[in-house]
Amino acid sequence: MPDIFLEDFIIGEVKTFGSHTFSREEIVAFAGEFDPQPMHLDEAAGKASLLGGLAASGWHTCAILMRLICDGFLLRTASMGSPGVTENKWKEPVRPGDTLTLRRTVLESRTSRSKPEMGLVTFRFELLKPDKSVVLEQVCVIMIGRRNPGARLA
Amino acid sequence: MPDIFLEDFIIGEVKTFGSHTFSREEIVAFAGEFDPQPMHLDEAAGKASLLGGLAASGWHTCAILMRLICDGFLLRTASMGSPGVTENKWKEPVRPGDTLTLRRTVLESRTSRSKPEMGLVTFRFELLKPDKSVVLEQVCVIMIGRRNPGARLA
Repeated sequence: MPDIFLEDFIIGEVKTFGSHTFSREEIVAFAGEFDPQPMHLDEAAGKASLLGGLAASGWHTCAILMRLICDGFLLRTASMGSPGVTENKWKEPVRPGDTLTLRRTVLESRTSRSKPEMGLVTFRFELLKPDKSVVLEQVCVIMIGRRNPGARLA
Repeated sequence: MPDIFLEDFIIGEVKTFGSHTFSREEIVAFAGEFDPQPMHLDEAAGKASLLGGLAASGWHTCAILMRLICDGFLLRTASMGSPGVTENKWKEPVRPGDTLTLRRTVLESRTSRSKPEMGLVTFRFELLKPDKSVVLEQVCVIMIGRRNPGARLA
């Protein structure tokens, strides 16, 4: 049962969660299945590309972001899914051996007009390298159940 | 060697490419690795959710979109990668057995100010069910090499 509800997301709050280290094998496996562009499969092709070396598919980075979101807080949250993403920037290549950490910022929170049992939280999710450079920046809305439906948000 | 260049993307052009049928096994496998929320793993949990039944992770749908983009035209295109996505809407659940087709609309095309050998094309990508309902809508910018760098676009 979830123990994190809409009321627990405080606007402006910044938290970091978990980390993932990308292996060459998983970068090539993901790309082979979903994004078989040469720069995601082969070192020489990566070097010849704007990425400057073998680098993960941006969709692989997004998938890992989702996993860190799940493990960090979402699986304990009264989440009801997401209507979508309003911004997703791939800012730097992700290479074999890179370890990325999730940073979550709560940008906005509001109750739903049509569904009083839930609200919508807008998050900025970022994946950071150990030197704090940001490789992925995403703004995403998640529908989250309320602890006290019908009560006014503070 | 690529045979599709910046000059080949005509603003307003709409084309459809390929299709993919989602199996229950791949929906559960993707979710288990990247998005282990119960509604993506289990029929009963899906039924109890807003999705109304077991449904693919939105990131799985995005990954399949990327594969259809690759197979449809990108692997033959002088693509130099993507800075990101400016909009991504998950509009309907994707269920086991659903067959989705890619529809591509060219929204905008311009040469790069800083890199005369390339330009940026803004696409609307959609995944459609056989009844033409749209399950995923995405606006994405891709950097694409020019056939004739330095020449003026028509």
